[in-house]
Amino acid sequence: MALNDNMTMLTDFYELTMGNGYFEAGRKDEIAWFDMFFRHIPDRGGYAIMAGVEQIVDYMENLHFSDEDIEYLRSKHMFSEGFLDYLKNFKFECDVWAVPEGVPIFPQEPIVTVRGPVIQAQLMETMILLTINHESLIATKANRIVRAAQGRSVMEFGSRRAHGTAAAIMGARAAYIGGCAGTACTITDREFGIPALGTMAHSWVQLFPSEYEAFTAYAKMYPDNCILLIDTYDVLKSGLPNAIRVFKEQKPESMGVRIDSGDIAYLTKQVRKKLDEEGLQDCKITVSNSLDEYLIRDVIMEGAQIDSFGVGERMITAKSEPVFGGVYKLSAVEENGKIIPKIKISENVGKISNPAAKKLYRIYSKETGKAEADLIMLKDEPMPTEDGYVIFDPCVNWKKKTLNNYVAKDIRVQLFDHGKKVYDCPPIQEVQKFCKEQMETLWEETLRFENPQRYFVDLSEGLYNTKQKLIHKNREMKQEHK
Amino acid sequence: MALNDNMTMLTDFYELTMGNGYFEAGRKDEIAWFDMFFRHIPDRGGYAIMAGVEQIVDYMENLHFSDEDIEYLRSKHMFSEGFLDYLKNFKFECDVWAVPEGVPIFPQEPIVTVRGPVIQAQLMETMILLTINHESLIATKANRIVRAAQGRSVMEFGSRRAHGTAAAIMGARAAYIGGCAGTACTITDREFGIPALGTMAHSWVQLFPSEYEAFTAYAKMYPDNCILLIDTYDVLKSGLPNAIRVFKEQKPESMGVRIDSGDIAYLTKQVRKKLDEEGLQDCKITVSNSLDEYLIRDVIMEGAQIDSFGVGERMITAKSEPVFGGVYKLSAVEENGKIIPKIKISENVGKISNPAAKKLYRIYSKETGKAEADLIMLKDEPMPTEDGYVIFDPCVNWKKKTLNNYVAKDIRVQLFDHGKKVYDCPPIQEVQKFCKEQMETLWEETLRFENPQRYFVDLSEGLYNTKQKLIHKNREMKQEHK
Repeated sequence: MALNDNMTMLTDFYELTMGNGYFEAGRKDEIAWFDMFFRHIPDRGGYAIMAGVEQIVDYMENLHFSDEDIEYLRSKHMFSEGFLDYLKNFKFECDVWAVPEGVPIFPQEPIVTVRGPVIQAQLMETMILLTINHESLIATKANRIVRAAQGRSVMEFGSRRAHGTAAAIMGARAAYIGGCAGTACTITDREFGIPALGTMAHSWVQLFPSEYEAFTAYAKMYPDNCILLIDTYDVLKSGLPNAIRVFKEQKPESMGVRIDSGDIAYLTKQVRKKLDEEGLQDCKITVSNSLDEYLIRDVIMEGAQIDSFGVGERMITAKSEPVFGGVYKLSAVEENGKIIPKIKISENVGKISNPAAKKLYRIYSKETGKAEADLIMLKDEPMPTEDGYVIFDPCVNWKKKTLNNYVAKDIRVQLFDHGKKVYDCPPIQEVQKFCKEQMETLWEETLRFENPQRYFVDLSEGLYNTKQKLIHKNREMKQEHK
Repeated sequence: MALNDNMTMLTDFYELTMGNGYFEAGRKDEIAWFDMFFRHIPDRGGYAIMAGVEQIVDYMENLHFSDEDIEYLRSKHMFSEGFLDYLKNFKFECDVWAVPEGVPIFPQEPIVTVRGPVIQAQLMETMILLTINHESLIATKANRIVRAAQGRSVMEFGSRRAHGTAAAIMGARAAYIGGCAGTACTITDREFGIPALGTMAHSWVQLFPSEYEAFTAYAKMYPDNCILLIDTYDVLKSGLPNAIRVFKEQKPESMGVRIDSGDIAYLTKQVRKKLDEEGLQDCKITVSNSLDEYLIRDVIMEGAQIDSFGVGERMITAKSEPVFGGVYKLSAVEENGKIIPKIKISENVGKISNPAAKKLYRIYSKETGKAEADLIMLKDEPMPTEDGYVIFDPCVNWKKKTLNNYVAKDIRVQLFDHGKKVYDCPPIQEVQKFCKEQMETLWEETLRFENPQRYFVDLSEGLYNTKQKLIHKNREMKQEHK
């Protein structure tokens, strides 16, 4: 099956030149810590949604280099035979932690952490990033679109505009996590049990001698789910009158009309009125046609009469901002079992990485159940539980917040322990439900599409001090070069 | 291998409900004609580039339903046993034509045409669209970026931000067709022989006790291609002085520096000056960091000193416009061997489809070798060869152009003849070369990034008249419903 293929070689070439370098420098057993985090929420939103964990688990479980891979690498004349042997006998030995799928995530948080032999931990960079970046992007976009629909159902219809096969299959999966009711993508249903639905294209209508005959044939075939596409020739003058005639003649158990072009606010109001006049109050109206959260919000405000949305290209490509910019940075190395924090400096203060082996807590108010803040801490730092704990903004550190009556929860799970899988990915239906519950812990102010309230992500005092020390040490090193 | 997996089930569910419908209505042997075309060039550009043909050929060759697929479909309780049997014994019988990869394409043109039993021709809609839409999108974007670099080399570096595995693998392939020199994506090299390159990440530098030691280790390991990443701590105060020291000490055969952050115009000018002062004129400068055609054009104008660009997220996602909106529409059916043209009407005149079985000619001036116009014709209409042939704009038909001293070429190839593959996909290196040659047949005015001259795509008189007749017939049908 395509979805479980060995993607070991889907790695940036530099992971391999570095791997060979570490091997040849005698550093293959050196232990490194890497974090994946992102810096910016797409669409200037207030939250993102974690997705893609099941796929990185599959990837890590399947990691191996085939003879064909080794032959290819040998042909590059850059890699030592010792290193090629190491790859041939590759045995995954890393520890991996991640935020589970469906959980809201925020900038700077270590959403994935890998600890292990440097060659291995480095090798996985590309696939971890591309998988989590892609699926989180689509889950986040889908969640925005579903919220805009205010309870109306949203179907994922975008396969034909997806960026290749995996974008279609996994994009539909991610959209489901974000709250979509189903997809048009058949293989995603077969693979994950995400309901696939679909009725007819314009070609069905065109292929019959008349629209009426096309609708009649369909209604006879599918009385359980008779959704007729009414815009092949003209919605109000042809499609709707033909659909009404066929509904009355064939009396399907479940009926609906779909409109895929034109002004959907105007057309759906006219269609609803006419259907109601004809006693077809049960007939649902579905629309599709370049929709996203902004357009859905606006047409609902205009009083459009829509029961369900089919959303294609703007969701499957996250058109308004198609990049989820997660990065994967070294945070520490181990020397004789001791963890030595590492930092990546940048001219841009916001781009300076958070060093050290870390953990991630979410703090909930016991009173409201709402999430108050996230706290990134040193791995071995205890999480205070008593009232009066003061957290502060890591950039503007006079911005403080005193926590009372709270409960703190480590929101990450361990996926692998020394290369052994220790996590069972929940079925996707549970992930969707979990995501919905998690979203309810966020304040409405954080969910606003534009200019939302920034959710607090603070550093513990231990981590803050570690970071400051490394920044100052680095500045001193630079002075020496002047 | 992932890249040849059976993607038969990557199909919109409605292709199957319609297929079952045709089967049950006794229409399974009816012959239908479908065209893929697009309406709009991304980024308001003047041209797009065809890509993805090799992948649709692979897909069509591999089309089949596994027992697992049939079981899944049966579980939906919507498909007749007769239809499931038909799928189980599926034998591909279509004729397929397409514009070859690397050729500039324009709106309204039938870039893929499928003729065959309606169930089959319909089934392929999703995969044809997603494949050609994706790869043409990236090839087009890459070509813009490569042209902006004005002869400097451009590497594809975007795997980590691609929309899933296929977007990374095939996106790198498409970027190569568009003119990229290579990719960072290792599996794309193994699969297609597209040169994969890569040197080091910031983690390499961080993992050594000092930047100097990291650079020294790398220079010793890779003297043939010693490109040092100089922005881990500080480009001008740390990275560059350390790189210069190592270049002088280790004297690698080929050397370069890479900058991945900061103001690349300012930094590269400073770096070039310093390298030249130190006698390192041979040292190349590579930059990466959220580049696209606009930024590359601008920094070159500012006098940035750059030898090669690494382009990531903005190319692999076509960030500025990530949707290539190709559609797949029924154009004709056959009745007793006679081709009956079909049309899809729309309120929006530009969205009315071109009916009938067609062919596509490109007209070149014998004098300049430049492409003057494309002509969409009825399949059996002869292409005039004598001087004085008048073509006209299909929307504004008083806009006429008289062709003299021209040669007209059918720019499509046949991929399948009654289900048999009759086309050998050329190696990707030839496709890249072909694309470059093809681009030289376009006028500069068509290549401009913004507000380019629109390339002429005209309809033959035969096709124009067929279309008008169907539009009028449709208007009469609508009158009857009033």
